[in-house]
Amino acid sequence: MNAEIIASGSEMLTPARIDTNSLYLTERLNTLGIEVVGKEIVGDDRERMAHMIEAALGRADLLVITGGLGPTEDDVTRDAVAMILGFGMHFDEAVYAVIEARFARMRRKMSEINRRQAFILDTAEILPNDRGTAPGQWIEAQGKIVALLPGPPNEMKAMFEKQVFERLRQRVPPLVIRTVELRVAGMPESELDQLISPVYKKYANPVTTVLAAPGDIQIHFRAHAETEAEAEALLKEVVDQVAPLLGDRLYTRRGETLEKVVGDMLRARKATVAVAESCTGGGLGERITTVDGSSDYFVGGFLTYTNRMKTELLDVSAQLLEQHGAVSEQAALAMARGAREHTGATYALSVTGVAGPAGGTAETPVGTVYIGLASERGESARRFQFLGDRGRIRGFAVHYALDMLRHALIAA
Amino acid sequence: MNAEIIASGSEMLTPARIDTNSLYLTERLNTLGIEVVGKEIVGDDRERMAHMIEAALGRADLLVITGGLGPTEDDVTRDAVAMILGFGMHFDEAVYAVIEARFARMRRKMSEINRRQAFILDTAEILPNDRGTAPGQWIEAQGKIVALLPGPPNEMKAMFEKQVFERLRQRVPPLVIRTVELRVAGMPESELDQLISPVYKKYANPVTTVLAAPGDIQIHFRAHAETEAEAEALLKEVVDQVAPLLGDRLYTRRGETLEKVVGDMLRARKATVAVAESCTGGGLGERITTVDGSSDYFVGGFLTYTNRMKTELLDVSAQLLEQHGAVSEQAALAMARGAREHTGATYALSVTGVAGPAGGTAETPVGTVYIGLASERGESARRFQFLGDRGRIRGFAVHYALDMLRHALIAA
Repeated sequence: MNAEIIASGSEMLTPARIDTNSLYLTERLNTLGIEVVGKEIVGDDRERMAHMIEAALGRADLLVITGGLGPTEDDVTRDAVAMILGFGMHFDEAVYAVIEARFARMRRKMSEINRRQAFILDTAEILPNDRGTAPGQWIEAQGKIVALLPGPPNEMKAMFEKQVFERLRQRVPPLVIRTVELRVAGMPESELDQLISPVYKKYANPVTTVLAAPGDIQIHFRAHAETEAEAEALLKEVVDQVAPLLGDRLYTRRGETLEKVVGDMLRARKATVAVAESCTGGGLGERITTVDGSSDYFVGGFLTYTNRMKTELLDVSAQLLEQHGAVSEQAALAMARGAREHTGATYALSVTGVAGPAGGTAETPVGTVYIGLASERGESARRFQFLGDRGRIRGFAVHYALDMLRHALIAA
Repeated sequence: MNAEIIASGSEMLTPARIDTNSLYLTERLNTLGIEVVGKEIVGDDRERMAHMIEAALGRADLLVITGGLGPTEDDVTRDAVAMILGFGMHFDEAVYAVIEARFARMRRKMSEINRRQAFILDTAEILPNDRGTAPGQWIEAQGKIVALLPGPPNEMKAMFEKQVFERLRQRVPPLVIRTVELRVAGMPESELDQLISPVYKKYANPVTTVLAAPGDIQIHFRAHAETEAEAEALLKEVVDQVAPLLGDRLYTRRGETLEKVVGDMLRARKATVAVAESCTGGGLGERITTVDGSSDYFVGGFLTYTNRMKTELLDVSAQLLEQHGAVSEQAALAMARGAREHTGATYALSVTGVAGPAGGTAETPVGTVYIGLASERGESARRFQFLGDRGRIRGFAVHYALDMLRHALIAA
């Protein structure tokens, strides 16, 4: 089976927006052994959309269409598909009731135009949407499959996982795909690739993909075989050679985030953590608490953006700040110490730096960040020099702070 | 004139790669008043490529194709275009000599397969490539224009600027494009659309696009005209009708983020803000400090994830928490008050809620969030019920907290 993916939405025909839904969909379809042979983007125009659907159905067995299922006049997907497949549409009372109930739950008045979302193609199966109002639709006709999914990524992904994946799996020959995702902190992509590519280049199956985010690298291995055991064996052969090369920079073999791994380590040790943030402004706490159940180990912390707050909330002495500056090893140490003392947490992390674009000096240029860590074993701090814009520097700082805590927990 | 853009290359049909050439091309084409009405990605397959070209020519006046002009069997663009337009191709000695000379300059041996790159469609104009070996081609036939450009972005952009832009400019009427972006907080997309669509639907120019993020809506208007003044007048006519319908839910006419708008309001009033965050874990501070120069008005704050921290850092009484719970109006009020007293900020925002997935009860289900605000005028708090997963609920909470501060600043 092969597939094309059409994304509907005029905003994706502007210079500023790209379609990312199709990347997710491609990954999931590949998992089933379905190859994506074309992708299209079309605006909110019924005729063009219909023409594009017709053309795509001339080339592919499966057509996944994202977007254009909303309540407004711009949402033309339903009409265009009906036009090309020659189906009628009907108003579905049950779907409408679900939409009404959703609005009621949100204590919102529902406007009349939401009725549009309850129109379903004759012969379509309804794909419930538990994250939004627009239901998806599954249509089989003329030997082809057409799946209509909502445009917002969180709605689209949830619907694909719960409704579409299994339907497709039943329609393709069994192909076992197994993946392993390693994650590595604290080394640049080029260095990592030089280290591990002599190993993975020897294998066409599993396929290896290296993806890099600031400070964080994911290594995906993807093996296909006729049986699960065979796929697992293919993976094991490569991973068993790659992992030893990475040492303790490898922080998970299960694709978990760094904050999840660190959180699990804290919980296992019945330890807690607090933060004292300057340049990251809350980003470290935010990332730690992204994890469900982080209240087991995260107690809280201090956002001390100004010198005065560093002194008043964390007892960093005005003299220290005067002498060494707020972006200094001494300040990072004192912030971590103050956060630990005021919260009673087992560990306290501090971040102080120059995220830019302004504020850099010759001695502490933009991108300079000190990360401090306090525990019962004492305090330590490290200086980092990150490259990039404000967002990237702050992202690096949060990531390296978590990794510093991870290393302390390994040693504990 | 309108256009479609086809990108050729199997690597862009994998989960890890996107086509970015089309974003650049869209921007440049829009500058000439040429609307992009569709974009396609196709692999290195002659038949599919030919079919996609034929379909695109059925919809658009101009077709720009990037990639597939290289020397290998995978490079099928020339063949596919010739097939669809019904043209022959000829070997161009002059083009071949240029390619040979390029290899000689690089002191590299040229392989025989590079001859493929010297095949030119009959009637095509050659577009020289000064950054690579594959020349582009410009074809006018059947009232359509087809431009073949190389795939590597640096080659493609240089060729477009030097060869294609001016050719197109001579073929389109002089045109000016102007855009306005409104942003609206605190209303759902369907409600907004019902309110404003009766206005914007009356106008084909400007074109209106509505984009929704959690709690935040962008309305793009895009006008084209022969002169700047005319385009501005077209925009003004619609915006002047839409804006009054939105009242103070409209927070910018210049496409700025909510945190930027709120920050500018604080700075203009020489006011400062502090935060006290529970369920958002630092996300509110993080978002406020995304803005360059936020140290002008953001002093800092408290992450009080546990009850104990609420009491110790913010003086929220244990009795209050016992009696009303940490997710309550009383707790939100006391947190905001405590944050303001301990920081001396003009305004303090507090957030306490159940982000889930665990922790919900019948009285305070997952998604319940109280937002508090303290200022010299006293304290207030509001209860919200957000829907979605943990990330979405936290995103809504941060957004509505910022919007609550914005409303207070308007009234100040």
